[in-house]
Amino acid sequence: MNGAESLLRSLIASGVDVCFGNPGTSEMHFVAALDEVDGMRPILGLFEGVVTGAADGYGRMAGKPAATLLHLGPGLANGLANLHNARRASSPVVNIVGDHASTHARFEAPLTSDIKGFARPVSHWIHSSSSALTVGADAARAVQASMEGAGQIATLILPADTAWSQADAVAAPLPTPAPALASGEAIDRIAALARTGVRTAFLLRGKALQERGLRAAGRIAAKTGARLLCDTFAPRLQRGAGRVPVERLPYFAEQVVDFLAGTELLVLVGAQPPVSFFAYPDKPSSLTPQECRVAVLAHPHEDGTAALESLVEALGAQHAIARAIDRQDIEFSSNGPLDGESIMRSVARHLPENAIITEEASLAMAHYALTESAAPHDFLTLTGGAIGSMMPVSIGAGVACPDRKVVNLVGDGSAMYTLQSLWTMARENIDVVTVIYSNGGYRILANELKRVGARTDGAHAASMFDLGNPSLDWVALARGMGVEAFRAESRETFDTSLAHAMKRRGPMLIEAVI
Amino acid sequence: MNGAESLLRSLIASGVDVCFGNPGTSEMHFVAALDEVDGMRPILGLFEGVVTGAADGYGRMAGKPAATLLHLGPGLANGLANLHNARRASSPVVNIVGDHASTHARFEAPLTSDIKGFARPVSHWIHSSSSALTVGADAARAVQASMEGAGQIATLILPADTAWSQADAVAAPLPTPAPALASGEAIDRIAALARTGVRTAFLLRGKALQERGLRAAGRIAAKTGARLLCDTFAPRLQRGAGRVPVERLPYFAEQVVDFLAGTELLVLVGAQPPVSFFAYPDKPSSLTPQECRVAVLAHPHEDGTAALESLVEALGAQHAIARAIDRQDIEFSSNGPLDGESIMRSVARHLPENAIITEEASLAMAHYALTESAAPHDFLTLTGGAIGSMMPVSIGAGVACPDRKVVNLVGDGSAMYTLQSLWTMARENIDVVTVIYSNGGYRILANELKRVGARTDGAHAASMFDLGNPSLDWVALARGMGVEAFRAESRETFDTSLAHAMKRRGPMLIEAVI
Repeated sequence: MNGAESLLRSLIASGVDVCFGNPGTSEMHFVAALDEVDGMRPILGLFEGVVTGAADGYGRMAGKPAATLLHLGPGLANGLANLHNARRASSPVVNIVGDHASTHARFEAPLTSDIKGFARPVSHWIHSSSSALTVGADAARAVQASMEGAGQIATLILPADTAWSQADAVAAPLPTPAPALASGEAIDRIAALARTGVRTAFLLRGKALQERGLRAAGRIAAKTGARLLCDTFAPRLQRGAGRVPVERLPYFAEQVVDFLAGTELLVLVGAQPPVSFFAYPDKPSSLTPQECRVAVLAHPHEDGTAALESLVEALGAQHAIARAIDRQDIEFSSNGPLDGESIMRSVARHLPENAIITEEASLAMAHYALTESAAPHDFLTLTGGAIGSMMPVSIGAGVACPDRKVVNLVGDGSAMYTLQSLWTMARENIDVVTVIYSNGGYRILANELKRVGARTDGAHAASMFDLGNPSLDWVALARGMGVEAFRAESRETFDTSLAHAMKRRGPMLIEAVI
Repeated sequence: MNGAESLLRSLIASGVDVCFGNPGTSEMHFVAALDEVDGMRPILGLFEGVVTGAADGYGRMAGKPAATLLHLGPGLANGLANLHNARRASSPVVNIVGDHASTHARFEAPLTSDIKGFARPVSHWIHSSSSALTVGADAARAVQASMEGAGQIATLILPADTAWSQADAVAAPLPTPAPALASGEAIDRIAALARTGVRTAFLLRGKALQERGLRAAGRIAAKTGARLLCDTFAPRLQRGAGRVPVERLPYFAEQVVDFLAGTELLVLVGAQPPVSFFAYPDKPSSLTPQECRVAVLAHPHEDGTAALESLVEALGAQHAIARAIDRQDIEFSSNGPLDGESIMRSVARHLPENAIITEEASLAMAHYALTESAAPHDFLTLTGGAIGSMMPVSIGAGVACPDRKVVNLVGDGSAMYTLQSLWTMARENIDVVTVIYSNGGYRILANELKRVGARTDGAHAASMFDLGNPSLDWVALARGMGVEAFRAESRETFDTSLAHAMKRRGPMLIEAVI
């Protein structure tokens, strides 16, 4: 057994059975080992942003890491933006990055680079294997590191000679770290505060936004009258009919200020105090109301769900009846232009049970409320602001949950960043329908230009937000990568295409011209 | 005048008049300033790999930097792989990277990241502006830093408040640093060695591979019988009919060993001793023959051309007659399948005077010799091994040299990395014909798998090099981004399409199915 095989068998023993990758020469022994060893599904991405973004989506939905396989420093570099997003999502990810053989490193060959330097800004854990004899144990540690806290990025660098040299062992898995428990004192203090009748809001993030946490939060809200909130960009939220409703913080700073006005106690459950996405001249960065007290029920590395359940007990709310969202039929009319609202009405109407929505379009965010009373679903957003996230996240979500439909709502500007995702969707027959909000521009930036107080009528500036001249033809782009695609310019065409896409399996793209 | 305008005016004053960019909210004031100030051409790329790769190509051909405009850490991260290539090419590049306002940085907003950490592995010079009052001077220094040595990557980080706050000055340009002169002692020592009749080879890189350096090198070769060599992946080489011939080092280690066998003296002119691109079990990394002496005529930061001219004098070779490449008609037959050789025969036949060839395809490299006797041209290659380089390099070369045809020869796997380049080619009407070597796979990797001694018959491994299932349709992809495209499956169709593309202006793509 060589080091590559030891690594691969150790990853599988630790429960990692999917590897998104784009290998090169220095990873060839790992690639060859894929045929020696059963139990790892290799998935090729034609650009590393697809690879790391898919690992993010997989981690969010599977609750365990996929491996990535990346070619030296530049391969890792191409995947960094989506690792930044994955880090903000607290997704567990194990990166395997090939490196030159240790004897070769000193020669400054063209691909030589500072791999640890590239990895550092996005990684919680970095290690470079020093011998084929340790790569198995290094892999087990990488998997464990990825599961620490709320979920982490672990980067294991694999010099080519550690892959091709003789190894002798498969490492046993290390124990999965249990999340820390929130302090009983914090729980009692918050229970006492909540009983005083102050106007309270709980800001939830992480696993607390899944059903069990929401049930507990719903009881607390019923008992105390507190609001339940989530970040504008939560990694994963379970919502839809039958679920406990959670209000999403708006995007712009001044909207958040209005939204939180009057809150006297903000309780954080795995979340940070809300801040403005960007700074603007003369606008605040910190968005917690001035007089509002902030209390931490659970830090991000702690078990927010357990903390909520303890708080339920402390408040005697075990029998409180949580509010649940009613299923509502969404009105739809084919009269009027295709726009953000009518697209979302169609999505809400046709959303199958237990779907996964991935969102990266400002026009989808604007009509978020319309899907609240649709069939129950998971909702995933762009956590780190690095656009090009949801195209591959939808792949990873689909791989993690092959029996669930993924509905991928993305702006044209975002989708262009990682459009190679379409090819992987086709090859792996991912059950994802991608809706492109095709408005020919970085719509959000034209808006931001005004907000920062800059002049807005110049041709140069306008050209920087304009994806027209030439227009993108998404149907051609999708078909060029083997994905069936349709263009919709009216509500009716869009609704019919979407209904069709929802009923069949496999990837499809609808270009919604708006 | 705000800081953004001060920055922009200072860049222009320092001779930077092209800005490849993909801005976001934190760069809005810079974008707005583009309409206040004349003299900067902004060029939008729909992904930052396009932006930085274009700056590389521009730097190689213009001999001065373009600016890039990048959105915070993730925007920079997306451009890192092509900055790695630019660094290996010694291209001058000035990156302008927006950052959060200094008051906002501490809040850990979603896009907050370690920008300097991302920049460090690829940058020779990094600075974060601390005030609107200094950004102009910081920009002038960045431009100067980019022109030091053989050419450098300078990264200037621009917090949003330094862009929007009041500034008062446009910085005067700083002197362009002159390259250091090689030591007279080195020149005399090499002249003495060369006169002893040892079998000598000159390995040239940098400006020494342009006409003036080649003329001097040609005289030295005529006088001494020395061979003239260039690296496998030289940033820029002037070649073709009438030029002094230079032998290109082969790619694989064992080929280089054969190629250099018998060399007794290797003289480096701006180059490093040759090394294997990758390490392989039981193969050497350093490829200089064991008994060969290595002498440095000029280090990379020194003026190699002047050193060659001094050596001409020291050898009394001023009147030696350098060999020049004869123009030859390349034979072409439409009988037989379209393949790497027949493609290159068509390229050689139809290459216009003074074209620029950009190469990133192993099948183009294999038939490199066929263009040697074609019309004189500049030849640009993938310097850092990070694929996805030449699609955008061809854009930058075309922007720097609008009157010259760019012929962009790329493999399908490479082209997919930065296929967004096609859109910028269309928008800017770049005069580039892209030939896609469409063989449906990472051909080089299937070969490398054997070379590293790994098992090669497994289905998993094969799937990682295979771009079929589904096949890419490059004509659809190009048309989807507004570039006219044709598919060629025979020699005749390819030759006719290429002849047509060479004669018209503007971007075109030919998918050569091989």
